[in-house]
Amino acid sequence: MCAAYHTLAPQDRQAEYQKVQAHFEDLKTRGLKLNMARGKPGKAQLDLVSDILTVLVNPADCVSDGIDVRNYGELTGIPAAKRLFADILGCKSEECIIGGNSSLTLMYDTISKAYTHGLLHSEKPWCQLDKVKFLCPAPGYDRHFKVTESFGAEMIVVPMTPTGPDMDLVEELVRDPAVKGMWCVPKYSNPDGIIYSDETIRRIAALKPAAPDFTVMWDNAYCVHEFDGPFVPFADILTLCREAGNPDMVYEYASTSKITFPGAGISVMASSVDNVAYMEKLMTVQTISYDKVNQLRHVAYLKDKEHTLALMQRHAEILRPKFQCVLRWLDSEIAPLEIASWQRPKGGYFVSVNTKPGLAKRTLALCKEAGVVMTGAGATFPYGKDPQNSNIRIAPSLPPVEELEQAMDVFCTCLKLAALEQLAQ
Amino acid sequence: MCAAYHTLAPQDRQAEYQKVQAHFEDLKTRGLKLNMARGKPGKAQLDLVSDILTVLVNPADCVSDGIDVRNYGELTGIPAAKRLFADILGCKSEECIIGGNSSLTLMYDTISKAYTHGLLHSEKPWCQLDKVKFLCPAPGYDRHFKVTESFGAEMIVVPMTPTGPDMDLVEELVRDPAVKGMWCVPKYSNPDGIIYSDETIRRIAALKPAAPDFTVMWDNAYCVHEFDGPFVPFADILTLCREAGNPDMVYEYASTSKITFPGAGISVMASSVDNVAYMEKLMTVQTISYDKVNQLRHVAYLKDKEHTLALMQRHAEILRPKFQCVLRWLDSEIAPLEIASWQRPKGGYFVSVNTKPGLAKRTLALCKEAGVVMTGAGATFPYGKDPQNSNIRIAPSLPPVEELEQAMDVFCTCLKLAALEQLAQ
Repeated sequence: MCAAYHTLAPQDRQAEYQKVQAHFEDLKTRGLKLNMARGKPGKAQLDLVSDILTVLVNPADCVSDGIDVRNYGELTGIPAAKRLFADILGCKSEECIIGGNSSLTLMYDTISKAYTHGLLHSEKPWCQLDKVKFLCPAPGYDRHFKVTESFGAEMIVVPMTPTGPDMDLVEELVRDPAVKGMWCVPKYSNPDGIIYSDETIRRIAALKPAAPDFTVMWDNAYCVHEFDGPFVPFADILTLCREAGNPDMVYEYASTSKITFPGAGISVMASSVDNVAYMEKLMTVQTISYDKVNQLRHVAYLKDKEHTLALMQRHAEILRPKFQCVLRWLDSEIAPLEIASWQRPKGGYFVSVNTKPGLAKRTLALCKEAGVVMTGAGATFPYGKDPQNSNIRIAPSLPPVEELEQAMDVFCTCLKLAALEQLAQ
Repeated sequence: MCAAYHTLAPQDRQAEYQKVQAHFEDLKTRGLKLNMARGKPGKAQLDLVSDILTVLVNPADCVSDGIDVRNYGELTGIPAAKRLFADILGCKSEECIIGGNSSLTLMYDTISKAYTHGLLHSEKPWCQLDKVKFLCPAPGYDRHFKVTESFGAEMIVVPMTPTGPDMDLVEELVRDPAVKGMWCVPKYSNPDGIIYSDETIRRIAALKPAAPDFTVMWDNAYCVHEFDGPFVPFADILTLCREAGNPDMVYEYASTSKITFPGAGISVMASSVDNVAYMEKLMTVQTISYDKVNQLRHVAYLKDKEHTLALMQRHAEILRPKFQCVLRWLDSEIAPLEIASWQRPKGGYFVSVNTKPGLAKRTLALCKEAGVVMTGAGATFPYGKDPQNSNIRIAPSLPPVEELEQAMDVFCTCLKLAALEQLAQ
């Protein structure tokens, strides 16, 4: 194994370059077509849950709490689905609105309604304000940033730390009344895979924002998504906000997209009963109900939190070897070279690699040349601009392990090549 | 049977009043609890289509055109669902975006995006305009009007005629650049149940609006919903608009809500390929895909237009006796009295009764007293204000015929009572 690149004499570096370059050329000849771009479950995970297709078979199966779920009605969702999510999230069922197959849509709708109608405590709709600013802990989830970008909000990067967003900075920034909200993925954050510390969460719940309608967008996307070890209990942000005197400050989101089918699950938005009542009034105009047959299908299949957690352990058995593969390659091929660092998540869908500054774009361009598609460089930052050109999100869930081995070979080779090119400049 | 009320001598009128009043008191003692408020299918219709629950059973069933519908992707819908709706609507599959369970949500989203982002030919988002006006043929669908009302548009009533909206007025109104669009239910209009004439449709397609982003919201909710007689072919509005030089002026909507399950169907938005491309770009931010498992479930169950029309004839067998019941009561009990007129629809979900001016609210208040809930008076007009206080929407689909007989007894009695009260003033 080679020593740390920055310690190499020019001659040794040249030798290493030739070796890595030769391997890269060899990889290119293999005509690979591999994808580690998105947190997309693999086929084995889809097959694992396909019994959900047949839990509702005849008309009698379609009645829940006296409601025929096949007909119109129940705008905010069936009670049984609210109970299921309340059980999973640790909130109350009356704090839940059950949505369609996409929690992202619920988040988009919240921001959209803030712009067109205002939120509960808004003085006016955000579209009537000169300036709306939004806090974006980064690296973060590209689709969050796209939502606020799409509406023209000014996005302010808040650095992520191993315990969550830099809270000193957040507390300072929320004193600006134009700062209207903040994106959070509090458990197994996308992409770092870290869990916000208790102190971070308490400080978020206790924020004293200048804007009366400041909104924490709490995307609990990976609430039960441990792939290594048992379920990690997690504080209920709704309770914490209420106790801190901020009952209406947070909207929490979750979905079954990575529990059952990614494209055909159900989602939830949980917030204070006052926020739920406010949103229900606005939603009346938008739909008659979400798909309640699918809500009941999920209740029949997932049953409760305990049963859901048992299923998640079976997903974990499929996912764990994939993450182990990624980390094994990084540990053996990259660690000694001192050209990148990474987190070691125990849940979620990503491994976040931070290269030495300036290497991310080049690494991913080389990967593409060799047939490996990854999340675009910069995607984890607002406006797609990673100031260090350093963060790379690896999404290992889709390919089978044998393909992942090849993809990681490509990735490590390309990262080495990019680092050596930079050192040669 | 009594003669026309307006011809009665005071003494005869008094006698009739006492007779009707006595019957009303009798009806009240029956403790009825009947609902003719919304176009909600009855249980027999839900049972008719419940085989859809089991058309997808195992993983192999979930592949369509090589796409595993269980996973993320295919933002605008699976090709097979686009082909199905293109077949039904007579448009091209590339003109279709397949949505979730609610076409109302697709309509809301279109208006919402017009406000926040603007449409393809908008000079700026509508939220930045001083004034947005919207044409509302009335009586019409209350939820359409609620959407535009919710966004603060000024709604302009356009009277409905037996051939559709008053087109002379529409052609004049669209010369105002603040007029941004128009709601239409072109086939079996809600609530009148009339079909726009060919000439009306051609004139709509050929409009020359001052606003470059004028948008016809073409809610083809009852496109295959004949309950009396065979399928009535209907012009493709997309083609007509294109031929008239207005390719991007129309968005068409439809759904399977009254074909399969009302709360768990799929929907479509059809528009020009340029509009589809524009909307797809905005939708990328909002969701990863709609529920493709449900899309494929519908394709497997409905197959094609021919098979769908055969199913609709079975719905018709359930619905026809209900509409016949309504018309029989109106014909025998109300027609001779000359206190109201109505359409005789052959499709759709409603019978629209126009009472003599000033009777609608009182009639419905009396119905409520006797335990019969109907669509609120005025609901079929923008802002809930029926200038004549005359239009009443009867929705006979939900109750079984035996309940409907009782409900119509109540309705006719209350309408008589309201008319007699008015004459006594």
